[in-house]
Amino acid sequence: MSAPAMKGKVYLMGAGPGDPDLLTVKALRVLRAAEVVLHDDLVSSKILDLIPASTQVRNVGKRCGQAAISQEKIHSLLTSAAREGRQVVRLKGGDPLLFGRVGEEMEALSLAGIDFEVVPGVTSAMGAAAAAKIPLTDRRFASKLVFVSNHAAGDTPAVWDDVISQDATHVVYMPGADYSEIAARLSAGGLNGRTPCLVVANATLAEQQIHRTTLHQLALEPRLPAPALLIIGEVARPLPHFEGEKASPRAASKPHEEVLHLTDTPIRA
Amino acid sequence: MSAPAMKGKVYLMGAGPGDPDLLTVKALRVLRAAEVVLHDDLVSSKILDLIPASTQVRNVGKRCGQAAISQEKIHSLLTSAAREGRQVVRLKGGDPLLFGRVGEEMEALSLAGIDFEVVPGVTSAMGAAAAAKIPLTDRRFASKLVFVSNHAAGDTPAVWDDVISQDATHVVYMPGADYSEIAARLSAGGLNGRTPCLVVANATLAEQQIHRTTLHQLALEPRLPAPALLIIGEVARPLPHFEGEKASPRAASKPHEEVLHLTDTPIRA
Repeated sequence: MSAPAMKGKVYLMGAGPGDPDLLTVKALRVLRAAEVVLHDDLVSSKILDLIPASTQVRNVGKRCGQAAISQEKIHSLLTSAAREGRQVVRLKGGDPLLFGRVGEEMEALSLAGIDFEVVPGVTSAMGAAAAAKIPLTDRRFASKLVFVSNHAAGDTPAVWDDVISQDATHVVYMPGADYSEIAARLSAGGLNGRTPCLVVANATLAEQQIHRTTLHQLALEPRLPAPALLIIGEVARPLPHFEGEKASPRAASKPHEEVLHLTDTPIRA
Repeated sequence: MSAPAMKGKVYLMGAGPGDPDLLTVKALRVLRAAEVVLHDDLVSSKILDLIPASTQVRNVGKRCGQAAISQEKIHSLLTSAAREGRQVVRLKGGDPLLFGRVGEEMEALSLAGIDFEVVPGVTSAMGAAAAAKIPLTDRRFASKLVFVSNHAAGDTPAVWDDVISQDATHVVYMPGADYSEIAARLSAGGLNGRTPCLVVANATLAEQQIHRTTLHQLALEPRLPAPALLIIGEVARPLPHFEGEKASPRAASKPHEEVLHLTDTPIRA
């Protein structure tokens, strides 16, 4: 039943939000055994550092400061490496099935008769919410979760006005530079200006930044570096504090601009 | 800067969709070092098997065949174990921040002055989509992802009619027994009866079942055991097949009822 030793295979794999400790056990094992890795630009350097030196690694991201590699070229690289009998990893930030072009990559691999497997990952929204200590849903405030991308596909503008609900938490991936347009859209959809918002950049990495604000003030927030996302909803309100000890640094910070930094935990697995 | 050795801490942690290989590296490490684990009923036995024999383990789930443990009792168990200086894990299926009561647990811990951390996880929808080899978004078919729970909180019925969009993928967690009501709601929201659907139970475990159907036929699907979820959207259509070899078992299966089973991969980390 086992495949021939030389049979090539492609792993369409999620690297998680950034912290290498948030790779899955499986993703770490596959990454360490890979012969070829084609990765997106936003996969963190700490994760790339886990790849053995003998592995062929190529950045096929859209923002690597060189002419963009076409989607067709990526399909061709994946297919030809697998046909050479290699274990190939297509590594994407977060979960591979969300806001990427894995649908097209799976089709190309299937049509080419290449064996492939999808290895899921922790998506950035989960990492950001964990770092900020807010739930993504809460039966008292929001019973639904809506993920949208503000990065338009091709020439079509991103449309998500039809999934705005007061009883939902909204997560905007790839918000770009124009937070005010996003805020205006959510307000037009019926959300209150006092709705709490988080702006999160580099979730779960040492350079992580989390700014707390409100929908009304979101337009005034400084642009944070990519990868960034916005979490908008009643769930994003700060936790009540223990009153048995003096005020924590968190409680003493400015209410609308709070920056959290993480310390790193080394991988031991 | 380091905490005293005896200081208790609570980890609100996601176990992932079921396969222990889809725990994060961090979750596996924390689980192996825990002194007390309070887990939900739907955490897979293969994951519970990773907990050392010396650890105190308690099922605090709502469906463990005994009188339900109240949310307040769970808060009290977490708080008292941490005050005794223990490393405590509150283990939930999937990601801990989605469709649970972690919001209430975080509030209780914060108000009690207990140190806690959230460890994110791979949510079941990601595991199910990976196993079924479908994207969750695809710029050609669906640019948004909507997670809803069909399990009503308290006496309030689940309401999600306001986030139904033809350009979205909808994932219904905890669909219960009445698939026809869900299908009727999505149809009333404007989705075409031919929209592809997946019914997935025990995602990523050996006993995983995936049934392919359409929105029109969803009501006729057999009920699958919990944990189950439904993925509804154009992204759920089957992949085109390689025509260079004879039909695969997958291509030969019945178009509206396909069952996939996984083989296990042992944890090595």
